[in-house]
Amino acid sequence: MIRFGICGFGYWGPNLFRNLNTHAEIEVTAVADRSEARRHQARSVKQDLKLCEDAIEMIERADVDAVAVATPVATHFDIAAHALRHGKHVLVEKPLCESGKQAEELIALADSKNVALLVDHVYVFHPAVRLLKKLLAANELGTVSYFDSLRVNLGLFQPDVNVLWDLAPHDFSILDFLFDEDPTYIEATGYSHVHPERPDIAFVTAHYKSRMIAHVNLSWMSPVKVRRTAIGGSKKMVVWDDMNNEEKIKIYNSGIELRPEEQRHIHYRIGDIYSPRVQQGEALGGLVQETYRAITGDRRSVIDGRHGLRVVRMLESAQIALAASMATARKAMGQVT
Amino acid sequence: MIRFGICGFGYWGPNLFRNLNTHAEIEVTAVADRSEARRHQARSVKQDLKLCEDAIEMIERADVDAVAVATPVATHFDIAAHALRHGKHVLVEKPLCESGKQAEELIALADSKNVALLVDHVYVFHPAVRLLKKLLAANELGTVSYFDSLRVNLGLFQPDVNVLWDLAPHDFSILDFLFDEDPTYIEATGYSHVHPERPDIAFVTAHYKSRMIAHVNLSWMSPVKVRRTAIGGSKKMVVWDDMNNEEKIKIYNSGIELRPEEQRHIHYRIGDIYSPRVQQGEALGGLVQETYRAITGDRRSVIDGRHGLRVVRMLESAQIALAASMATARKAMGQVT
Amino acid sequence: MIRFGICGFGYWGPNLFRNLNTHAEIEVTAVADRSEARRHQARSVKQDLKLCEDAIEMIERADVDAVAVATPVATHFDIAAHALRHGKHVLVEKPLCESGKQAEELIALADSKNVALLVDHVYVFHPAVRLLKKLLAANELGTVSYFDSLRVNLGLFQPDVNVLWDLAPHDFSILDFLFDEDPTYIEATGYSHVHPERPDIAFVTAHYKSRMIAHVNLSWMSPVKVRRTAIGGSKKMVVWDDMNNEEKIKIYNSGIELRPEEQRHIHYRIGDIYSPRVQQGEALGGLVQETYRAITGDRRSVIDGRHGLRVVRMLESAQIALAASMATARKAMGQVT
Amino acid sequence: MIRFGICGFGYWGPNLFRNLNTHAEIEVTAVADRSEARRHQARSVKQDLKLCEDAIEMIERADVDAVAVATPVATHFDIAAHALRHGKHVLVEKPLCESGKQAEELIALADSKNVALLVDHVYVFHPAVRLLKKLLAANELGTVSYFDSLRVNLGLFQPDVNVLWDLAPHDFSILDFLFDEDPTYIEATGYSHVHPERPDIAFVTAHYKSRMIAHVNLSWMSPVKVRRTAIGGSKKMVVWDDMNNEEKIKIYNSGIELRPEEQRHIHYRIGDIYSPRVQQGEALGGLVQETYRAITGDRRSVIDGRHGLRVVRMLESAQIALAASMATARKAMGQVT
Repeated sequence: MIRFGICGFGYWGPNLFRNLNTHAEIEVTAVADRSEARRHQARSVKQDLKLCEDAIEMIERADVDAVAVATPVATHFDIAAHALRHGKHVLVEKPLCESGKQAEELIALADSKNVALLVDHVYVFHPAVRLLKKLLAANELGTVSYFDSLRVNLGLFQPDVNVLWDLAPHDFSILDFLFDEDPTYIEATGYSHVHPERPDIAFVTAHYKSRMIAHVNLSWMSPVKVRRTAIGGSKKMVVWDDMNNEEKIKIYNSGIELRPEEQRHIHYRIGDIYSPRVQQGEALGGLVQETYRAITGDRRSVIDGRHGLRVVRMLESAQIALAASMATARKAMGQVT
Repeated sequence: MIRFGICGFGYWGPNLFRNLNTHAEIEVTAVADRSEARRHQARSVKQDLKLCEDAIEMIERADVDAVAVATPVATHFDIAAHALRHGKHVLVEKPLCESGKQAEELIALADSKNVALLVDHVYVFHPAVRLLKKLLAANELGTVSYFDSLRVNLGLFQPDVNVLWDLAPHDFSILDFLFDEDPTYIEATGYSHVHPERPDIAFVTAHYKSRMIAHVNLSWMSPVKVRRTAIGGSKKMVVWDDMNNEEKIKIYNSGIELRPEEQRHIHYRIGDIYSPRVQQGEALGGLVQETYRAITGDRRSVIDGRHGLRVVRMLESAQIALAASMATARKAMGQVT
Repeated sequence: MIRFGICGFGYWGPNLFRNLNTHAEIEVTAVADRSEARRHQARSVKQDLKLCEDAIEMIERADVDAVAVATPVATHFDIAAHALRHGKHVLVEKPLCESGKQAEELIALADSKNVALLVDHVYVFHPAVRLLKKLLAANELGTVSYFDSLRVNLGLFQPDVNVLWDLAPHDFSILDFLFDEDPTYIEATGYSHVHPERPDIAFVTAHYKSRMIAHVNLSWMSPVKVRRTAIGGSKKMVVWDDMNNEEKIKIYNSGIELRPEEQRHIHYRIGDIYSPRVQQGEALGGLVQETYRAITGDRRSVIDGRHGLRVVRMLESAQIALAASMATARKAMGQVT
Repeated sequence: MIRFGICGFGYWGPNLFRNLNTHAEIEVTAVADRSEARRHQARSVKQDLKLCEDAIEMIERADVDAVAVATPVATHFDIAAHALRHGKHVLVEKPLCESGKQAEELIALADSKNVALLVDHVYVFHPAVRLLKKLLAANELGTVSYFDSLRVNLGLFQPDVNVLWDLAPHDFSILDFLFDEDPTYIEATGYSHVHPERPDIAFVTAHYKSRMIAHVNLSWMSPVKVRRTAIGGSKKMVVWDDMNNEEKIKIYNSGIELRPEEQRHIHYRIGDIYSPRVQQGEALGGLVQETYRAITGDRRSVIDGRHGLRVVRMLESAQIALAASMATARKAMGQVT
């Protein structure tokens, strides 16, 4: 039985609690949160929980074998590092931490203590992503030429991160999981409409040696929630619309072909469309199972520290490109006046 | 009665013919095309057409008052300039020409000869664009923070232009018509999968002093044809889906508001949705009527040379940014190996 | 504090439990179910529940003020009647019972004992239905000429009822709630493909003096789940698509007009479309609140026994028509051979 | 070369003209219409057309080998009969005529003169219907249990027919073509809201010995145009949405299975969805080709008089049932007052 302590019982903590606790071999024994209201809420869910005001205190408890970190990003590194130093397994809410340097330290700590370090990239366990992985593994799509993601919704402004650090971890972890390839060059631009220093719209483009180009359109300012990812290959193309319950994934039996001009205006698509049934089932369940597996067995995992590091590095590169582009844009406007 | 000669009877020429000729005060009297098959085709549509192998010859005919140019982009400037020098009114297929310098020369020629110079930016007359213009003029949307366009389809590779010059003129002419503002800074990136030197995917971002950011996602490699444009304002937001016949335009009574985290996962939208009826009717008809008006009256027009120039300048800036980005990406890949 | 006992803890019982128990002034104190497994399940949800094998025993408990009946339809009458005789308030799962005669007896019992008799027609509290009621009350639609409902899905064959008794109560209760009018004539037809004696497809048509015609298309054999209801009025028309989360209700600013033939093939719709925001929120919550109100205050309710009786009468008429039509159809086939 | 004369140049005549005339081996030589405006219109389309005020006169012309009848339904029989008696091939706009008796006479005339008698049931040549026929022929769907069609739109009230005779011929000809089986029993009901004697809403149910039940929902009073046909088989089910350009046909890899109640609320569909590419191309072209084939070769055809007769018989039966039901409904309302 793995005994888990959860740091942070705000928005995501209760989800982690529910999912960790339903696992037959995992029990959540403690929760730490500065807010008394939230500690009270935790109590109401499970009477015999140990409640701590301080994360450090909880981490050091003897009846806590593993720690789930669901606190603001800025605190991830310190809490995770402390837990690892005390030989506790760690599952960190996404993103793993604030920099590649931090991620490397956490990985080194986990290795030296031989404990599991995992990041909560839940999309890696999304049935649609698993299906895409299977299609790619079977080379159903042929050579992939692009990955194009539209991930926009209204509001949900984060207190601590910008739209890039809030939404891009999903796409970056999916890209890392699906393609096992690091981008060679990342560009980004965007704009801050609401908070002067926190972009609420961002466009990221990642280039890959395999000739794939990945584009991610992120926004907190869309009137409709859109979760649409298109992947184009030389053989087939896929569109994953996560808001569509009946046809989450459509596989287009279409390739690229030059056609006589006469036909250009009549074609909507060329081949058949196949929409495989996507199993429902909560992705978090799969993540919890993988967490248990990594804690009890081989430390390596599709969501281990190295995976988290690669995602954080993409975030860092994108953040640098985003800041540079916005600065140039501001300068250009200055020059105009 | 305005007598029109059409240069080029390939894909677009017949459309121009049909629309120009249906106008009560316009008659198409001549067609020029190097291909005998195409000249033959033109004859079959109208027996008494003067058919020329050479554009120059047709332009100089006394029974040709105005010239429509539907030839490859590389030839636009020479043909248009020749026609203007001979005092003929000119309607050029989009884009107007290959450079801002060329556009300025054409404008100067048209002014000196006091003839109309127009560019065939047909979207300016699209009922949905007219509706958007009305909404903006009435300040229905409030301060606009973004313009986000997804314009992708499969194939249709052009013999003479890349995806930027093929598709972006639509978005750029719409942006110029709707917002009467020049961008201060344009970024672009993309990739060439099929022809080494001709991008088939391109992402363009334009920054405006008004704090609007415009993003255009262009591709010849999408399995589905998508024509989706979202415009976000402080009061309302609009999504124009041109492939949706029943609800082309949806106006979202939604603004940006910070909401308690607890609610974040349940909201699909905040306000009501209003979908005004969009008149059908072919946009080309409106363009022809405007062409007639500009020839017979005030030379200034929403599609005149100056409008065409602004669009070509955006294309030039985007092309330079696109080439630079692709070169950097190639270099980055080189460094990796 | 109203103390509730629930009879039947199969599919619907747990929902009733959850919703009744969350009400501040209601507590579920007992559960009756023949199956030990289900009693065990109830115990796991609330430790201090009184568990009974027999409904009668539970009904007669002193600490049970009200009884919720979630057992098979065939048992509704006996259980409800027993509870009413013992002066307990009763909430019955839909449909209220198997015949109008039974319903009249239940109403008489409830009146004589002055207790509340309610039927769990949850759609009456569906936000979309509430919105429709508001539109009708404000005469937004004008004179209503039709109500057309498509309520189909795959499988879910009931052990005890046919598709009519399973699905039609939803439409009939909505019709009764929205229009406060009894149909004057009901027709029905259908077919039994799976169980010889239990139709799995049924079409019901109800005629009203107000000149409204209501049509209900019910099926357990549709590959897609459809919940689409159209209501046509002289001023406006409404389509309620309950599977559409973004635009549950669309109000068409369209009326009936004779148009020149020439136009017939181009029109998809005439007026604008307005899609008011439909509040989420579980309908069962509203039903529980109304249950509490009726128990503590005025016995009359939009879901009281008389409402339940009118719905059962519609079911009876439809069942008779359905059986007659199917018999005639069988005879016709016999005659052919 | 077959020389065609067209009777009636109103709404459908010009379509017939365009399609007949584009066939290499067919020439339209004459048009008859009482209205001078319409004759003038015909002239503008083809200068050398013989124009007649009177159908009889045109039919008897020596340079007319075949006659297309696009006049009001009430006149179909007389015009077609006259043409057949004069040994002319006849293509009649749907429906073939007003009664089975009339249809039998026309068939007898055509047989005795050995000329082709065809009815313009254009849906028989619709690419989607052809695809459905192929699926059924290959027994892809298994035993078909239902055919459910929703064919509704706004307005388009006909001067001479009710909604049944206007829209049902489409569904009846599709049913006859797809299933080669006569219904054994037909029921119908509906309502007349606009014209007292002409139903604008009608529901038809046809029973078949093969245990298939066919239901057709027809209306001139729907705010949206819907053309949705569902066909359910023991192996697979198909939904044909003719308003959906990207996925006209969806084949559901779903059958009927009894599932545990617990799952009932989570399933939208069970199997995969396959959406074969449906060729565009105008159905009328196929009909014209078939017309040419039947005139020049074997008289039997999928759209011959016998097919037309079966469709008219279904219309007759449905009309009788519709009238009876409406009379009963009126009586029932009377009884209430």
